[in-house]
Order: sequence, then C-alpha cells, then structure tokens
Amino acid sequence: MGFATATAVSSDGPGSWKAEIVDGWDIGSRANGGYMLAIVARAMASDLDRPDPVTITAHYLAPGPAGPVRVTTSVVRSGRRFATARGRLVADDRVSLEVLGTFGDLSEPSDAPTLVRVEPPSMPPVEECIPLEPVPGQALPPPFMGRVEIRLHPDDARFSEGGASGIPRIRGWFRLRENEPIDTLALLCAVDALPPTAFNARLPLGWTPTVELTAHIRARPAAGWLRCAFTTNYVTNGFLEEDGVIWDSTDTLVAQSRQLALVPRG
Amino acid sequence: MGFATATAVSSDGPGSWKAEIVDGWDIGSRANGGYMLAIVARAMASDLDRPDPVTITAHYLAPGPAGPVRVTTSVVRSGRRFATARGRLVADDRVSLEVLGTFGDLSEPSDAPTLVRVEPPSMPPVEECIPLEPVPGQALPPPFMGRVEIRLHPDDARFSEGGASGIPRIRGWFRLRENEPIDTLALLCAVDALPPTAFNARLPLGWTPTVELTAHIRARPAAGWLRCAFTTNYVTNGFLEEDGVIWDSTDTLVAQSRQLALVPRG
Repeated sequence: MGFATATAVSSDGPGSWKAEIVDGWDIGSRANGGYMLAIVARAMASDLDRPDPVTITAHYLAPGPAGPVRVTTSVVRSGRRFATARGRLVADDRVSLEVLGTFGDLSEPSDAPTLVRVEPPSMPPVEECIPLEPVPGQALPPPFMGRVEIRLHPDDARFSEGGASGIPRIRGWFRLRENEPIDTLALLCAVDALPPTAFNARLPLGWTPTVELTAHIRARPAAGWLRCAFTTNYVTNGFLEEDGVIWDSTDTLVAQSRQLALVPRG
Repeated sequence: MGFATATAVSSDGPGSWKAEIVDGWDIGSRANGGYMLAIVARAMASDLDRPDPVTITAHYLAPGPAGPVRVTTSVVRSGRRFATARGRLVADDRVSLEVLGTFGDLSEPSDAPTLVRVEPPSMPPVEECIPLEPVPGQALPPPFMGRVEIRLHPDDARFSEGGASGIPRIRGWFRLRENEPIDTLALLCAVDALPPTAFNARLPLGWTPTVELTAHIRARPAAGWLRCAFTTNYVTNGFLEEDGVIWDSTDTLVAQSRQLALVPRG
C-alpha cells in the first residue's frame, strides 16, 4: 500500500474524518510522527480546500497504534492567499496529535527576490549511499523503512555498528516506494523519516521522543530523489532540536523542519 | 507600564480571558508579534497551571490593534510532565493569533547529557553596542523599542543609514525596561523583538509579515542582559525563515525560535 492510500481520509460529517494508521508505518510499534501528521494534514487540506501545508505544527501527545483513527478539523480563518485550521488525531479515545497549520497553493512559483546562503547537502550518488531496509525478525531498522526508501550518506550510516560519526547529523536520500510521486503532504513524512541525529552523537542517548514538530513547505518537489539533512546543535536541559532541510532534484529547497525532542536522562 | 502588566490577563469564565493590547507595544501601529503571543501564553499557562512554555507556535492572522482583546484557551491534554493547550487572541471580532503550546515547569535543571555545537554569539560589551530608541515624530525606530531595551551589534546596526551588512543577520542585547525580570513568557517577546534580518540583506525587501512563529524555551533566564542572534539562510519562493537563539548572562541557551515570513514581491 502506497503513501497516498495509507494517509487517506474519508469525510464523516463537517470537520470529522475517518482514517487508519496502517500497520507497517511504525517504528517499534509507534506510528512514525511524520506519517501521522500527513494524515491530519490531508484532512485539514480537504477542509480548507487548499492543497499545500505552508507551515504546520504538531504536538505529539500519545503514540498512534495501528488501526482506525478519527481526525477532527476546524477552520480558523480562510483568507485570499492562505487559510488556517486546527486538526486533531484521536486513537483509542486518546488525542495522539494536536495540529495547527496554514495552507495555501504553491503551484505558482513566486517572483519575489531569492537568496540562498547554505547550499544543498553534498551527497554521494544514490547508488553509493547505504540503504535502510527492515530485516524480518529484527527490531532495527524498523518496519517503517520498508514503506519509504532511504539511502544514508555513508559517513552518517555506521551508528548501528558502533560507528557513530560523533556529529549529531544524518544526511540521506529519500523517496516513496514504487517511486510514488511526492506531494507536499508526503514531504511531512520525509521531514521525520531519517534516524535520529542523536544516533550519531557520542552521548549516552536512547530513544528521543518528539514533543513538537514544525515543517515549512517552501515548494512542491520535482520528481526524483530528495536530499535531506538533519542536524542538532543544542542538547541542553533535557531537550534537543533537530533541524531539517529537504532539497529536490532541481536544487530547490522544498522543506525546512524543526522538532523538539526529549533527551533520555543519562 | 512594564511587560508583566502589559501582558496581564484576567479570567472571565472557563477558558475565557480579558486582556489589553497596550498602546506603545507596536511597530507601525501593529502590536509586536512576540508581545501578543506572550499575552496568549500567559492565559494558557494559567489555564494549564504550568508556568513555562516549552514549545509554542502562533499563526498570525490579523494585526492586533491597541485596545481590549479577548483570549480563549482550551486544554488538550494535561500529563505528568507537560500539558498542552490551544489559545486564541480575538481583537475587534477578528482572530489575530491562533496558538498551540506545550507547557511545563523548567525550575528544576535536568541532569540529562549536554552537547553544545554552536557557541553563543560573539558580541561587544553592551556599552559598545547601538541602542534602538524611538524618536518622537519619527516612524522608525518604532514605539515598541521604547518598551524594551535593545543594543545592536555595531556590525548589524547600520541598515537604516544605507549600511546594510549584506548578511541577513541581526545580533543584539535585550532586556526589559527598568531591568524588569525576564521570565519565560518575556522570552516570547524577546524572540520577536529585534529588527528583521532582511534589513541587513542587500535585497529589495520591505516589511516581512510573520505567518508563523515557533519558540522553544530551553531554560529560565538568569538575571541580566540576554544575547540574541537572528539569521536567515533561505529567501525562496516568496518566503523566508528567521532563526533565533537567545543566551542568558550565564552562557545558558534559554530560547530557540524560528519564524516563517513573507517576502514582498520585488
């Protein structure tokens, strides 16, 4: 089952949607955060009748188990250029995600001035990068990696064999399986798809649960592999941020993301 | 009138609050975005009974004119360590801000491991930096600058005399007037207080309205001046981000912020 199907929503009355967290989009039986956000965003986009999440924030309140879920949406304001809504994903009667987003239509490129101060991440060709594939009977890489295609930068890929780079950074190529087209909703999955940056830090770090994730979608991606880079600069006071940039095959910045995650106590 | 008074809220029934956008906290008759966010955050903190906004996001939907406003709050989830709420500021029957935040208590420092990859911004001493003070009868610097105290890094301070640095960056010292203590709500004002980074870019940029602002509050600030640095890496497709870091007088990272703003068409 592809991404579009696995994030489908069906209207169930005004502002109410039925959806399903599909088995296999999980990491240690918790649905991937970006995947769940994409489900909510699809309902919000539909309610607002605007295709593209320009800026969207999710607060993660409870894990999303596989199975049927309910999404609710509520339009806050619908303007000429942008429209804003709230969204919520409820699984097993618990709020898993609370979302706030502003949507628009990114089909028309802007003629505003441009300035790019940081170039796309430098990466070896896809075929020289390291695939992340789930192995039956093994917890890692997680099942989610079978739903997307990731090729890690070789310098960032050896954390599981005791070869953490020492730099809390993960770079990789991303696409959907079967080369399914990546729209701006699928970018919400891409911003949370790579392994945590903390895996490459030489710190006694375990799992780092996401408190909040914000994505800015800058443009609709062209066909082809995406280049992604995630970096952490500050692990302080029990928190860390993970900053992401995603570039498409035409060297266009398509998304920027930041998440706040918790550092397990040492 | 100090910051705490200018952001006061009074309960007006469950989840309903009266407040006032105080004249003088504006930039060209629009209330400063961080100041308005602090009003809503104060109501959310009160509703949740948690003092510190750990991560908070505001979408800016309409300008907030000076005068009485209504704030509504709604608790989404109250957990052991964190609690999440929605907030809204309504002025003149229009939603000005829609907010989503997770709050906690940052009074106890964490014993989790620490890693700092980017040092605090290097700044000349306060007395060698350039004060921003409003001038009666002049639009710039705006009245808001009379409510806070800002000293800009000399390299970043000459944009108004045709001396833009060419780097979309603004660094400066920040404190409240009368040396009023800066709590974590006042940090929400600090993350949006300095002039736009775009003023230092050599681009035909005018006013850059904020679509969305997210702040991560990492720690309660110690007494004294704060060092702030805001940087823009990508002005693309009509959007720009402004990334901020704020450090306190003990070299502790107290806040990180990012806002998405619109680039006026060239």
